[in-house]
Amino acid sequence: MSATVAALFQRLTQGVYVIGVGDENARNAFTAAWVMQVSFDPLLLALSINPHHSSYTLLRQTGTFSVNVLGKNRTDLAAHFGQPASAGKLTAAEWTAGRTGAPLLRHAIAWFECVMIAEHPAGDHVLVLGRVTDGKVRDAAAEPLTYADTGALDGAAALFPDTFD
Amino acid sequence: MSATVAALFQRLTQGVYVIGVGDENARNAFTAAWVMQVSFDPLLLALSINPHHSSYTLLRQTGTFSVNVLGKNRTDLAAHFGQPASAGKLTAAEWTAGRTGAPLLRHAIAWFECVMIAEHPAGDHVLVLGRVTDGKVRDAAAEPLTYADTGALDGAAALFPDTFD
Repeated sequence: MSATVAALFQRLTQGVYVIGVGDENARNAFTAAWVMQVSFDPLLLALSINPHHSSYTLLRQTGTFSVNVLGKNRTDLAAHFGQPASAGKLTAAEWTAGRTGAPLLRHAIAWFECVMIAEHPAGDHVLVLGRVTDGKVRDAAAEPLTYADTGALDGAAALFPDTFD
Repeated sequence: MSATVAALFQRLTQGVYVIGVGDENARNAFTAAWVMQVSFDPLLLALSINPHHSSYTLLRQTGTFSVNVLGKNRTDLAAHFGQPASAGKLTAAEWTAGRTGAPLLRHAIAWFECVMIAEHPAGDHVLVLGRVTDGKVRDAAAEPLTYADTGALDGAAALFPDTFD
Protein backbone atom coordinates (compact mmCIF):
# COMPACT_ATOMS: atom_id res chain seq x y z
CA MET A 1 0.00 0.00 0.00
CA SER A 2 1.01 3.57 -0.45
CA ALA A 3 0.37 5.97 2.39
CA THR A 4 0.90 8.83 -0.06
CA VAL A 5 -1.61 7.88 -2.73
CA ALA A 6 -4.13 6.63 -0.17
CA ALA A 7 -3.81 9.88 1.79
CA LEU A 8 -4.42 11.90 -1.37
CA PHE A 9 -7.67 10.08 -2.12
CA GLN A 10 -8.78 10.61 1.49
CA ARG A 11 -9.15 14.31 0.58
CA LEU A 12 -12.20 13.36 -1.46
CA THR A 13 -15.31 13.74 0.68
CA GLN A 14 -17.57 10.68 0.70
CA GLY A 15 -20.56 9.50 2.66
CA VAL A 16 -21.38 6.01 3.93
CA TYR A 17 -24.43 4.18 2.66
CA VAL A 18 -26.00 0.76 2.81
CA ILE A 19 -27.11 -0.32 -0.65
CA GLY A 20 -30.11 -2.65 -0.64
CA VAL A 21 -30.79 -5.04 -3.52
CA GLY A 22 -33.17 -7.83 -4.39
CA ASP A 23 -36.83 -8.68 -3.91
CA GLU A 24 -38.97 -11.34 -2.25
CA ASN A 25 -36.85 -14.11 -3.81
CA ALA A 26 -33.48 -12.97 -2.46
CA ARG A 27 -32.21 -9.82 -0.79
CA ASN A 28 -28.89 -8.44 0.36
CA ALA A 29 -27.41 -5.15 1.53
CA PHE A 30 -23.83 -3.90 1.60
CA THR A 31 -21.88 -0.84 2.71
CA ALA A 32 -20.70 1.56 0.00
CA ALA A 33 -19.07 4.99 -0.12
CA TRP A 34 -19.05 5.58 -3.88
CA VAL A 35 -22.50 7.12 -4.33
CA MET A 36 -23.33 10.59 -5.66
CA GLN A 37 -26.00 12.61 -7.39
CA VAL A 38 -25.28 13.13 -11.11
CA SER A 39 -28.40 14.82 -12.55
CA PHE A 40 -31.28 17.05 -11.48
CA ASP A 41 -33.73 16.31 -14.29
CA PRO A 42 -34.27 13.43 -14.10
CA LEU A 43 -33.00 12.90 -10.56
CA LEU A 44 -30.16 10.40 -10.96
CA LEU A 45 -27.70 8.81 -8.56
CA ALA A 46 -24.51 7.03 -9.59
CA LEU A 47 -23.23 4.01 -7.64
CA SER A 48 -19.87 2.40 -8.32
CA ILE A 49 -20.10 -1.31 -7.51
CA ASN A 50 -17.67 -4.23 -7.60
CA PRO A 51 -19.08 -6.57 -10.27
CA HIS A 52 -17.66 -9.62 -8.45
CA HIS A 53 -19.90 -8.80 -5.49
CA SER A 54 -22.91 -11.14 -5.27
CA SER A 55 -25.14 -8.09 -4.76
CA TYR A 56 -24.31 -6.94 -8.27
CA THR A 57 -26.02 -10.07 -9.63
CA LEU A 58 -29.14 -9.30 -7.56
CA LEU A 59 -29.10 -5.66 -8.64
CA ARG A 60 -29.05 -6.68 -12.31
CA GLN A 61 -31.82 -9.24 -11.81
CA THR A 62 -34.29 -6.70 -10.43
CA GLY A 63 -32.87 -3.54 -12.01
CA THR A 64 -33.52 -1.69 -8.77
CA PHE A 65 -31.67 -0.72 -5.58
CA SER A 66 -32.06 1.34 -2.45
CA VAL A 67 -29.57 3.78 -0.93
CA ASN A 68 -29.79 3.99 2.86
CA VAL A 69 -27.98 6.93 4.46
CA LEU A 70 -26.29 6.08 7.77
CA GLY A 71 -26.26 8.54 10.65
CA LYS A 72 -23.14 9.94 12.29
CA ASN A 73 -23.13 7.46 15.19
CA ARG A 74 -23.83 4.29 13.20
CA THR A 75 -20.36 3.03 12.37
CA ASP A 76 -21.69 -0.29 13.73
CA LEU A 77 -24.13 -0.54 10.81
CA ALA A 78 -21.35 0.34 8.33
CA ALA A 79 -19.26 -2.51 9.78
CA HIS A 80 -22.19 -4.95 9.90
CA PHE A 81 -23.11 -4.42 6.25
CA GLY A 82 -19.46 -4.47 5.24
CA GLN A 83 -19.35 -8.21 6.00
CA PRO A 84 -19.55 -10.84 3.21
CA ALA A 85 -23.00 -11.61 1.79
CA SER A 86 -22.87 -15.09 3.32
CA ALA A 87 -23.16 -13.51 6.78
CA GLY A 88 -26.95 -13.16 6.36
CA LYS A 89 -26.70 -9.50 7.21
CA LEU A 90 -30.36 -8.62 6.79
CA THR A 91 -31.57 -11.25 9.23
CA ALA A 92 -29.92 -9.27 12.03
CA ALA A 93 -31.30 -5.88 10.93
CA GLU A 94 -34.67 -4.16 10.91
CA TRP A 95 -35.90 -3.34 7.43
CA THR A 96 -39.01 -3.11 5.29
CA ALA A 97 -39.39 -3.73 1.57
CA GLY A 98 -39.64 -0.62 -0.58
CA ARG A 99 -41.94 -0.30 -3.57
CA THR A 100 -39.23 -1.86 -5.75
CA GLY A 101 -38.79 -4.70 -3.27
CA ALA A 102 -35.32 -3.52 -2.23
CA PRO A 103 -34.75 -3.41 1.55
CA LEU A 104 -35.03 -0.05 3.35
CA LEU A 105 -33.22 0.04 6.69
CA ARG A 106 -35.26 1.18 9.65
CA HIS A 107 -32.22 2.80 11.27
CA ALA A 108 -31.10 4.76 8.21
CA ILE A 109 -31.53 8.54 8.56
CA ALA A 110 -32.82 8.74 4.97
CA TRP A 111 -33.37 6.41 2.03
CA PHE A 112 -33.74 6.54 -1.74
CA GLU A 113 -35.25 3.98 -4.10
CA CYS A 114 -33.73 3.78 -7.58
CA VAL A 115 -34.42 2.12 -10.89
CA MET A 116 -31.27 1.31 -12.86
CA ILE A 117 -31.24 3.10 -16.22
CA ALA A 118 -27.68 2.38 -17.37
CA GLU A 119 -24.40 0.80 -16.36
CA HIS A 120 -20.90 1.47 -17.63
CA PRO A 121 -17.55 -0.21 -17.02
CA ALA A 122 -15.31 1.82 -14.70
CA GLY A 123 -11.97 0.09 -14.18
CA ASP A 124 -12.35 -2.62 -11.53
CA HIS A 125 -15.90 -1.43 -10.79
CA VAL A 126 -19.14 -0.84 -12.69
CA LEU A 127 -20.89 2.50 -12.59
CA VAL A 128 -24.64 2.07 -12.20
CA LEU A 129 -26.96 5.00 -12.91
CA GLY A 130 -30.27 4.94 -11.06
CA ARG A 131 -33.30 7.16 -11.43
CA VAL A 132 -34.61 8.11 -8.00
CA THR A 133 -38.28 7.10 -7.86
CA ASP A 134 -38.91 7.60 -4.16
CA GLY A 135 -37.16 8.64 -0.99
CA LYS A 136 -37.65 9.95 2.51
CA VAL A 137 -35.81 11.60 5.36
CA ARG A 138 -36.43 9.50 8.48
CA ASP A 139 -34.49 11.62 10.97
CA ALA A 140 -34.24 15.28 9.98
CA ALA A 141 -32.09 16.16 12.98
CA ALA A 142 -29.40 13.53 12.33
CA GLU A 143 -26.17 14.27 10.52
CA PRO A 144 -24.86 11.74 8.00
CA LEU A 145 -21.89 9.50 8.72
CA THR A 146 -18.93 10.34 6.51
CA TYR A 147 -16.36 7.94 5.13
CA ALA A 148 -13.69 9.84 7.04
CA ASP A 149 -15.61 9.15 10.28
CA THR A 150 -15.16 5.40 9.75
CA GLY A 151 -11.37 5.58 9.80
CA ALA A 152 -9.65 2.52 8.40
CA LEU A 153 -12.72 0.32 8.92
CA ASP A 154 -12.77 -1.14 5.40
CA GLY A 155 -9.00 -1.52 4.91
CA ALA A 156 -9.24 0.32 1.58
CA ALA A 157 -5.86 2.02 2.04
CA ALA A 158 -4.26 -1.31 1.09
CA LEU A 159 -5.95 -1.18 -2.32
CA PHE A 160 -4.10 1.92 -3.52
CA PRO A 161 -0.99 1.61 -5.70
CA ASP A 162 2.35 2.92 -4.51
CA THR A 163 2.69 5.54 -7.23
CA PHE A 164 0.89 6.87 -10.29
CA ASP A 165 3.42 5.31 -12.68
CA MET B 1 -38.57 24.21 -5.57
CA SER B 2 -39.34 21.45 -3.14
CA ALA B 3 -37.93 21.73 0.35
CA THR B 4 -38.69 18.03 0.84
CA VAL B 5 -36.87 16.58 -2.15
CA ALA B 6 -33.99 19.06 -1.82
CA ALA B 7 -33.64 18.19 1.87
CA LEU B 8 -33.51 14.49 1.06
CA PHE B 9 -30.65 14.94 -1.40
CA GLN B 10 -28.78 17.04 1.18
CA ARG B 11 -28.30 13.78 3.12
CA LEU B 12 -25.81 12.71 0.45
CA THR B 13 -22.31 13.71 1.53
CA GLN B 14 -20.37 15.68 -1.08
CA GLY B 15 -17.16 17.65 -1.21
CA VAL B 16 -16.40 20.93 -2.98
CA TYR B 17 -13.84 21.03 -5.75
CA VAL B 18 -12.56 23.41 -8.39
CA ILE B 19 -12.27 21.61 -11.72
CA GLY B 20 -9.54 23.00 -13.97
CA VAL B 21 -9.68 22.57 -17.75
CA GLY B 22 -7.77 23.69 -20.82
CA ASP B 23 -4.18 24.32 -21.84
CA GLU B 24 -1.98 27.18 -23.02
CA ASN B 25 -4.59 28.21 -25.60
CA ALA B 26 -7.51 28.65 -23.20
CA ARG B 27 -8.14 27.73 -19.60
CA ASN B 28 -11.03 27.86 -17.16
CA ALA B 29 -11.97 26.51 -13.75
CA PHE B 30 -15.32 25.99 -12.07
CA THR B 31 -16.75 24.80 -8.76
CA ALA B 32 -18.24 21.30 -8.65
CA ALA B 33 -19.56 18.96 -5.98
CA TRP B 34 -20.29 15.88 -8.08
CA VAL B 35 -16.90 14.18 -8.00
CA MET B 36 -16.05 10.74 -6.60
CA GLN B 37 -13.62 7.87 -6.87
CA VAL B 38 -15.04 4.94 -8.88
CA SER B 39 -12.14 2.46 -9.28
CA PHE B 40 -8.91 1.41 -7.56
CA ASP B 41 -7.14 -0.27 -10.50
CA PRO B 42 -6.83 1.83 -12.51
CA LEU B 43 -7.41 4.83 -10.25
CA LEU B 44 -10.48 6.53 -11.70
CA LEU B 45 -12.52 9.57 -10.71
CA ALA B 46 -16.00 10.34 -12.03
CA LEU B 47 -17.11 13.94 -12.59
CA SER B 48 -20.67 14.90 -13.52
CA ILE B 49 -20.59 18.05 -15.64
CA ASN B 50 -23.23 20.21 -17.29
CA PRO B 51 -22.59 19.84 -21.04
CA HIS B 52 -23.89 23.38 -21.68
CA HIS B 53 -21.04 24.73 -19.56
CA SER B 54 -18.25 26.25 -21.67
CA SER B 55 -15.70 24.30 -19.61
CA TYR B 56 -17.13 21.07 -21.00
CA THR B 57 -15.98 22.15 -24.48
CA LEU B 58 -12.47 22.83 -23.17
CA LEU B 59 -12.42 19.50 -21.32
CA ARG B 60 -13.31 17.62 -24.49
CA GLN B 61 -10.71 19.53 -26.54
CA THR B 62 -7.80 18.53 -24.31
CA GLY B 63 -9.24 15.31 -22.86
CA THR B 64 -7.79 16.27 -19.47
CA PHE B 65 -8.86 18.00 -16.26
CA SER B 66 -7.68 18.74 -12.76
CA VAL B 67 -9.59 18.32 -9.50
CA ASN B 68 -8.57 20.86 -6.83
CA VAL B 69 -9.77 20.08 -3.30
CA LEU B 70 -10.82 23.18 -1.33
CA GLY B 71 -10.03 23.51 2.37
CA LYS B 72 -12.62 23.94 5.11
CA ASN B 73 -12.28 27.73 5.31
CA ARG B 74 -12.27 28.49 1.57
CA THR B 75 -15.94 29.07 0.81
CA ASP B 76 -14.64 32.24 -0.88
CA LEU B 77 -12.88 30.14 -3.53
CA ALA B 78 -16.01 28.02 -4.03
CA ALA B 79 -18.01 31.21 -4.64
CA HIS B 80 -15.33 32.75 -6.88
CA PHE B 81 -15.13 29.72 -9.18
CA GLY B 82 -18.89 29.36 -9.14
CA GLN B 83 -19.16 32.51 -11.26
CA PRO B 84 -19.76 32.36 -15.04
CA ALA B 85 -16.75 31.58 -17.24
CA SER B 86 -16.87 35.13 -18.65
CA ALA B 87 -15.75 36.45 -15.27
CA GLY B 88 -12.10 35.59 -16.04
CA LYS B 89 -11.87 33.63 -12.83
CA LEU B 90 -8.30 32.40 -13.25
CA THR B 91 -6.84 35.88 -13.69
CA ALA B 92 -7.75 36.64 -10.08
CA ALA B 93 -6.32 33.37 -8.70
CA GLU B 94 -2.88 31.86 -8.18
CA TRP B 95 -2.31 28.70 -10.19
CA THR B 96 0.31 26.74 -12.08
CA ALA B 97 -0.13 24.53 -15.13
CA GLY B 98 -0.06 20.80 -14.42
CA ARG B 99 1.60 18.25 -16.70
CA THR B 100 -1.61 18.04 -18.71
CA GLY B 101 -1.79 21.83 -18.98
CA ALA B 102 -4.84 22.03 -16.73
CA PRO B 103 -4.65 24.67 -13.98
CA LEU B 104 -3.71 23.58 -10.44
CA LEU B 105 -4.79 26.05 -7.74
CA ARG B 106 -2.10 27.15 -5.34
CA HIS B 107 -4.61 27.43 -2.49
CA ALA B 108 -6.15 23.99 -2.94
CA ILE B 109 -5.33 21.56 -0.10
CA ALA B 110 -4.78 18.77 -2.65
CA TRP B 111 -5.04 18.25 -6.40
CA PHE B 112 -5.45 15.46 -8.94
CA GLU B 113 -4.67 15.46 -12.66
CA CYS B 114 -6.86 13.26 -14.83
CA VAL B 115 -7.00 12.01 -18.40
CA MET B 116 -10.55 11.45 -19.66
CA ILE B 117 -11.09 7.82 -20.65
CA ALA B 118 -14.87 7.80 -21.22
CA GLU B 119 -18.01 9.89 -21.01
CA HIS B 120 -21.62 8.84 -20.66
CA PRO B 121 -24.90 10.74 -20.77
CA ALA B 122 -26.45 11.15 -17.31
CA GLY B 123 -29.74 13.03 -17.52
CA ASP B 124 -29.07 16.76 -17.72
CA HIS B 125 -25.35 16.15 -17.09
CA VAL B 126 -22.54 14.11 -18.62
CA LEU B 127 -20.52 11.69 -16.52
CA VAL B 128 -16.82 11.96 -17.35
CA LEU B 129 -14.45 9.21 -16.19
CA GLY B 130 -10.86 10.30 -15.67
CA ARG B 131 -7.79 8.19 -14.97
CA VAL B 132 -5.73 9.86 -12.24
CA THR B 133 -2.20 10.35 -13.61
CA ASP B 134 -0.80 12.57 -10.87
CA GLY B 135 -1.78 14.26 -7.64
CA LYS B 136 -0.48 15.75 -4.45
CA VAL B 137 -1.56 16.78 -0.97
CA ARG B 138 -0.51 20.42 -0.49
CA ASP B 139 -1.69 20.85 3.10
CA ALA B 140 -1.82 17.61 5.06
CA ALA B 141 -3.24 19.32 8.15
CA ALA B 142 -6.23 20.93 6.40
CA GLU B 143 -9.68 19.40 6.36
CA PRO B 144 -11.69 19.47 3.13
CA LEU B 145 -14.63 21.82 2.64
CA THR B 146 -17.91 19.92 2.34
CA TYR B 147 -20.89 20.84 0.22
CA ALA B 148 -22.97 21.10 3.40
CA ASP B 149 -20.49 23.73 4.70
CA THR B 150 -21.35 26.01 1.77
CA GLY B 151 -25.04 26.24 2.72
CA ALA B 152 -27.23 27.53 -0.08
CA LEU B 153 -24.32 29.16 -1.89
CA ASP B 154 -25.12 27.70 -5.31
CA GLY B 155 -28.91 27.94 -5.17
CA ALA B 156 -29.21 24.27 -6.16
CA ALA B 157 -32.26 23.70 -3.96
CA ALA B 158 -34.30 25.50 -6.63
CA LEU B 159 -33.34 22.84 -9.18
CA PHE B 160 -35.13 19.99 -7.43
CA PRO B 161 -38.62 18.93 -8.47
CA ASP B 162 -41.54 19.12 -6.05
CA THR B 163 -42.17 15.39 -5.97
CA PHE B 164 -40.93 12.14 -7.49
CA ASP B 165 -44.02 11.73 -9.67
